[in-house]
Amino acid sequence: MHIDILTVLPELLQSPFEHSIMKRAQDKGLLKVQVHQLRKWAVNEYGMVDDYQYGGGAGMVIMCEPLAKAIEELGKDRKYDEIIYLTPDGERLNQKIANTLSLKGNILMICGHYKGIDDRIREHYVTKEISIGDYVLSGGELAAAVLVDTIGRLIPGVLNDETSALFDSFQDDLLAPPVYTRPVDYNGWKVPDILMSGDHKKIADWRHEQSIQRTKERRPDILKD
Amino acid sequence: MHIDILTVLPELLQSPFEHSIMKRAQDKGLLKVQVHQLRKWAVNEYGMVDDYQYGGGAGMVIMCEPLAKAIEELGKDRKYDEIIYLTPDGERLNQKIANTLSLKGNILMICGHYKGIDDRIREHYVTKEISIGDYVLSGGELAAAVLVDTIGRLIPGVLNDETSALFDSFQDDLLAPPVYTRPVDYNGWKVPDILMSGDHKKIADWRHEQSIQRTKERRPDILKD
Repeated sequence: MHIDILTVLPELLQSPFEHSIMKRAQDKGLLKVQVHQLRKWAVNEYGMVDDYQYGGGAGMVIMCEPLAKAIEELGKDRKYDEIIYLTPDGERLNQKIANTLSLKGNILMICGHYKGIDDRIREHYVTKEISIGDYVLSGGELAAAVLVDTIGRLIPGVLNDETSALFDSFQDDLLAPPVYTRPVDYNGWKVPDILMSGDHKKIADWRHEQSIQRTKERRPDILKD
Repeated sequence: MHIDILTVLPELLQSPFEHSIMKRAQDKGLLKVQVHQLRKWAVNEYGMVDDYQYGGGAGMVIMCEPLAKAIEELGKDRKYDEIIYLTPDGERLNQKIANTLSLKGNILMICGHYKGIDDRIREHYVTKEISIGDYVLSGGELAAAVLVDTIGRLIPGVLNDETSALFDSFQDDLLAPPVYTRPVDYNGWKVPDILMSGDHKKIADWRHEQSIQRTKERRPDILKD
C-alpha cells in the first residue's frame, strides 16, 4: 500500500512513522508512507497556502490552488483509490472502515489546519471524509497518523502473529476481555483462577463471557443480538 | 497544566509535542508534557516490562510492577486529578470530556501496547479510561497525543484568538459550516455570494443554517431539538 499525506506540518509526523508497527510495515515493504509539504505548491514565493475566510471570522483556511495543484501532480504518479480529508465532520472512523481501507492500493490523505480547507476542494476532489472522533484537533496531522496506524496494522503480514488483530476489540463487535500477566499475586491482587487452569476450552468460554459482559456494561450500543 | 505520559515508546511521541499548538502551549508555560520511558521501572536489568498473558494467546501484556512503581514514584511529585488509561474499551472521547479535562491541573496518561496492560492496574490505579474512537491502534501513544492536543488547545490562552475554539464543530452540538478563502472563482467553482455581501447578520444566519443542514445530513445523532 502507498499512502501520500499532504500537510503544512510534515515535521510533526516524523517520529510516529519511524517507530513501532509503522516502521515494521515499511521495513517489510508492505506500506510506503510519503509525507509532502503542501508549501511546495504555495501560491507565492513566501510559501503562502492559506488566507482569511470569506465572510469574516477567526482562523485561516487552506486555499484551493495549492491543494488542487498538489493533488493533480501527485495523481500523475498513481491513481488514488481514495482521496481522504481528515475532518471532525467526516464519517466516524471505525474498525470496519479501517478493514476496508487496509485492502486499498493507493491513498492520499489531506490534513487541514486551523479552520480547515476551502470547501471547493472537498466538493471536487475529496472522495472520502473521515473523522477519528467527536472532538477537535489543532490539525489533521494526528488524525492522519491515527488513520495510517489503524489501517497499517491490518495489512496482512504487518503484525507478527496474524491472530493478534483478530481478537482485538471491535473485530467481532465485542470489546476485548481483561488480560493478565505475571505475577499471579501482585500486592494481594490476584489473577482469576480460571486463567491458570490450563483448560483451553474453559478459558475461551470465560474470555468470551467477559467480552460480552464488558461490552454490555461499557458499550451496549455496539452489542449485536 | 502538567501532563505525564508513561510509555514504552517515548521516541514515537517526540515530534508531535515539538510543533504547532502543543509547542506554543508549552512555550507559553500553559502546559508541560513529560514523556516517561516505562522501562525505567523495569522488573530486571534487561528492561523487561511485559510478559505473555495468562491463559495463553497471542500478544504481550504490560506487567503490574513497572506500572505500579512508576505511578507511585511520579505520584510523589504531584497529586494527579486523573490517571487515564488510553484503551479502545474506555469511554469515548468527545469535546465535552476534553472541555472538562482542560480544567484539570495534573494528569497522568498510560499508553498500552500490544494486548494492553494487566487488568489489576486498571482496577486499582486508573481513574478514567478513555478511547479516542472505535478502532484499534498498535499502541496508546497516538491516542495520548490526540488527547493532549484536544485538551491542550482548550486551555485558555493557548489559541491566539479565543473565539477560534468556540466556533469549532461539537462545541454547540453542531458541525462547523463550510469555509472558503480566495480566490472567489477557482476553476469555475465559486464562493457562495452571501459570504461577500458584507452583511454580518445575514452571514451569521447563513452559517448557522449551514451548520444545522450539515449536521442533519451527516450526524443527525448529535443534533438537539
